[in-house]
Amino acid sequence: MQISKPNWFESLKQHIEENDKITVFRHHNPDGDAYGSQWALVSWIRHHYPDKEVYAMGLQNGSLRHLFPPLQDVRNEQVLDSLGIILDTANAPRIDDRRYLDCRYTLKIDHHPHDDDYADESYIDELAPSTSEIVAQWMYWMDPKPLPMYIAQFLYIGMVMDTLHFTISSVNAQTLKVAGYLLESGFDVASLDDKMMLMSKNIFDYITYLRSHCSVDRIGLVYCYVPLDVQEQFHLTTQQAKEEVNAFKRLDVAKVWALLVEEDGLYNVSIRSRNHQVNQVAEKYGGGGHRFACAAHRLSFEQTTQLLDDLKNVLI
Amino acid sequence: MQISKPNWFESLKQHIEENDKITVFRHHNPDGDAYGSQWALVSWIRHHYPDKEVYAMGLQNGSLRHLFPPLQDVRNEQVLDSLGIILDTANAPRIDDRRYLDCRYTLKIDHHPHDDDYADESYIDELAPSTSEIVAQWMYWMDPKPLPMYIAQFLYIGMVMDTLHFTISSVNAQTLKVAGYLLESGFDVASLDDKMMLMSKNIFDYITYLRSHCSVDRIGLVYCYVPLDVQEQFHLTTQQAKEEVNAFKRLDVAKVWALLVEEDGLYNVSIRSRNHQVNQVAEKYGGGGHRFACAAHRLSFEQTTQLLDDLKNVLI
Repeated sequence: MQISKPNWFESLKQHIEENDKITVFRHHNPDGDAYGSQWALVSWIRHHYPDKEVYAMGLQNGSLRHLFPPLQDVRNEQVLDSLGIILDTANAPRIDDRRYLDCRYTLKIDHHPHDDDYADESYIDELAPSTSEIVAQWMYWMDPKPLPMYIAQFLYIGMVMDTLHFTISSVNAQTLKVAGYLLESGFDVASLDDKMMLMSKNIFDYITYLRSHCSVDRIGLVYCYVPLDVQEQFHLTTQQAKEEVNAFKRLDVAKVWALLVEEDGLYNVSIRSRNHQVNQVAEKYGGGGHRFACAAHRLSFEQTTQLLDDLKNVLI
Repeated sequence: MQISKPNWFESLKQHIEENDKITVFRHHNPDGDAYGSQWALVSWIRHHYPDKEVYAMGLQNGSLRHLFPPLQDVRNEQVLDSLGIILDTANAPRIDDRRYLDCRYTLKIDHHPHDDDYADESYIDELAPSTSEIVAQWMYWMDPKPLPMYIAQFLYIGMVMDTLHFTISSVNAQTLKVAGYLLESGFDVASLDDKMMLMSKNIFDYITYLRSHCSVDRIGLVYCYVPLDVQEQFHLTTQQAKEEVNAFKRLDVAKVWALLVEEDGLYNVSIRSRNHQVNQVAEKYGGGGHRFACAAHRLSFEQTTQLLDDLKNVLI
């Protein structure tokens, strides 16, 4: 397999080899890529350097937590003067666990737009579809033998979740070759996919509700309000309710789609689009994100109607 | 890239080089893999041997026909004494166009269980997730340079559709490396995926109907009858109605799922399962297929209730 070798690969290797205490961070409300890249790197370092102290940082929550090791309770002295590696996290407020400030030295490894230089060194590939792919490339460069299966699975989860099963534009030949390298470890993709993607009947019914209650605007905006009583009806947390924004992704008339999820009388809005830039709309309401995938939080109902108008204007 | 090289690769090359007239067949009601492997091979031979006469055989129908070149009207004398290559077709009755019998010599290339030796030579890889993957491997062996983009896209469609976005058990490291090789041709996966997967509002609403009208049996059987008036309500052909059997695939309690689609007062049944063998049930009613994906046709309502009972017995 041909893989690209960024010039920082050697530097990451040196930092890891020079430090006996390493803490690995990622963002709040971890998705598959945050969890996957974090636990893969933690496990890989432990596997190759069993004498080092290595800790995974952050609250172990979200709908994918069952795919990863349980929460570690890391004491302050275990963080102090460690090498801190922060994965998949665009800006400092998003880092899960403030104690990254206690690290001796910090490295940022990410694929989001690099707008916050919070670490001592930053290794950024904005074109990479996932942080897990970057980490997998580095591991391949360190040793091209197949990875231990559990490490390969962590990274595969990250790649699949962030690329929506290899269907987003940034997926390229290398993405699939790296995924092929991970599969050399020999796990069954169907079983892993079931563990990632199977949903309980209440989530299944909630998505059915979204499909039958969405507003489909003539110019390509599809959206659905999710009031509190609907979240209660399907036994959902606000976070779970927000995660199903892609319920409308396969609908051909949907150019931009959004979920507006009530919380404390205000609304959290998740926005997706096929190829219309929408993050400037989210930013107008104090939110942000990627060009085609973004969010804004704690808006009044009136603000949400303005935001929907702004999204329609993007489409005109 | 390492690819496996079956011993018949050389033989296929020789047959193609020795024949100036070549016809390429696939099965009735072509899915992405049948279409993709067929049009890729036709296009590849035309590209490399512009002096040969090469024809794609079969009726150009089904929901994916917009992704492939339009129907060719092939005359009898164009088939007579040609080399016939039959792709992705398990048995003779499934071959689309009876005139394969007029070929001078026939080759079968397939990944289905090899239970019908209808061709003069058969190249079978029952472990391959798709026929498109087999054809892509052969093309890579013939010339490892990136394929022309349109040929790579034909094969990518076949691989994605037959593997359900690389999520079935037979997907392995080589599958993803071959897919990565196809992406070297430079096409945008997101645009291609939209062309494959986007659905019109009536199909979207039909799936919503299936989700809200399915019976969810306590032991893991999920099924839905689709009477004629429902097909009319959503403006569907029977074939279109059958294609959405995987509407229940992501539901965690679904171990076996089925659609029972009315046609002329009888029912066509499509059956899928996560890991319970169900094809012996389909065979009992004159149908058949893969272990986890099969069908039976033209059953009375009473037979469908017996069949559902048989599926429940598989789960007990």
